[in-house]
Amino acid sequence: MYKVVLLRHGESIWNKENRFTGWTDVDLSEKGKEEAKKAGEVLKSEGYTFDIAYTSVLKRAIRTLWIVLDEMDLMWIPVIRHWRLNERHYGALQGLNKAETAKKYGEEQVKIWRRSYDIQPPALEKSDPRYPGHDPRYKDLSESELPLTECLKDTVARFVPYWEGTIAPMVKSGKKVLITAHGNSLRALVKYLDNIPDNEIVELNIPTGIPLVYELDENLKPIKHYYLGNPEEIEKAAAAVAAQAKVK
Amino acid sequence: MYKVVLLRHGESIWNKENRFTGWTDVDLSEKGKEEAKKAGEVLKSEGYTFDIAYTSVLKRAIRTLWIVLDEMDLMWIPVIRHWRLNERHYGALQGLNKAETAKKYGEEQVKIWRRSYDIQPPALEKSDPRYPGHDPRYKDLSESELPLTECLKDTVARFVPYWEGTIAPMVKSGKKVLITAHGNSLRALVKYLDNIPDNEIVELNIPTGIPLVYELDENLKPIKHYYLGNPEEIEKAAAAVAAQAKVK
Repeated sequence: MYKVVLLRHGESIWNKENRFTGWTDVDLSEKGKEEAKKAGEVLKSEGYTFDIAYTSVLKRAIRTLWIVLDEMDLMWIPVIRHWRLNERHYGALQGLNKAETAKKYGEEQVKIWRRSYDIQPPALEKSDPRYPGHDPRYKDLSESELPLTECLKDTVARFVPYWEGTIAPMVKSGKKVLITAHGNSLRALVKYLDNIPDNEIVELNIPTGIPLVYELDENLKPIKHYYLGNPEEIEKAAAAVAAQAKVK
Repeated sequence: MYKVVLLRHGESIWNKENRFTGWTDVDLSEKGKEEAKKAGEVLKSEGYTFDIAYTSVLKRAIRTLWIVLDEMDLMWIPVIRHWRLNERHYGALQGLNKAETAKKYGEEQVKIWRRSYDIQPPALEKSDPRYPGHDPRYKDLSESELPLTECLKDTVARFVPYWEGTIAPMVKSGKKVLITAHGNSLRALVKYLDNIPDNEIVELNIPTGIPLVYELDENLKPIKHYYLGNPEEIEKAAAAVAAQAKVK
């Protein structure tokens, strides 16, 4: 039996400002840092430890991981950053306020962009400063790997090969793995692991800063999963994520 | 022409308490964190950037690196932690106050242990809680790799193969490399690069928190090296390192 722990980064400055973030490299808010610290505390108090951690190349996930590792006195474990763990790329919506976008395009359209499985938000032009091809951290990616926009299906398509090719073999080798990533990249993984249908994944909300434990069998099929921490806080956090796209 | 930047971690709590640290996993002092921040600022203002960073498995070096990467907005670059970059293991002196040790064994003996090239301090017993074999971060090391004590020669012997086998090829591939490590592991590297005689390396002091730039030719032979920052502060910092073993 294997265990892997998934952790969505704490609240970012743009979560707080209710803006579409995607691959924008926005930092944690003070609340986000506190959430990360709490996550580290609960992991430590529940007796967890890790041999290796995977994260994205975005600082809100990396800082969350740093705070957790610091709290757990595990700063020394190997940390692998990879763009395939990045948040879903939000295309031309990146930087826009969610409530304003809902007012402009209609709440339904925004919900479709946010939560449909295979409908992409409007794409970026390559000349747009937000295009990842302009960012040195993606300089080794091929043009076909550089997104102009992504639906969740696209995020699944780029994350699952990394899970299968890199993280899953590490889990199977007996290493205790922590994955610190984003709402949609973790949703992509959960969809894959639990084989969740396209239309149901839309309603699945992973709260920020609360460790999600997956127990896996010898073929890495989930036996069960659960959050660590106070059940009331977990419920509250998931509800808050669901409410973000409502017109205010 | 290649450039590689070496950075000794900022002041640790035990630097401040004037105790032999070695492989003890002591954190930075507040001053040490400030030094790291300054190092990041000067690297940034001088236009430096990095593709990859190497550090030890000790938190004073890792935290120094984290602060520098944060300051330079480079949290996303790959970071490789390796025990071969650790500080020299100080054997049974680890944890002892330097001035007290000087009083007990004599200043000359302490200077020999601190600064001779090939005389090891008293060794640990394997039953000693300070023996690295008891620490999970070293669980993949063979018994012959686990030190009971080290002289600088031993540190050179374990660091240089990692430089030659891993870091140097990365430098030659054109990657901009930052190495954040310790007084003696960096001294080991400098001895090797500059081919400094055994008796002279004793007098070479690398100050904390000040980036040391090595410019290397196509065979990675040094062309020149220099510190970044205020020359007066650099001088003062080096003098402070040299004064640590005096009886107070």
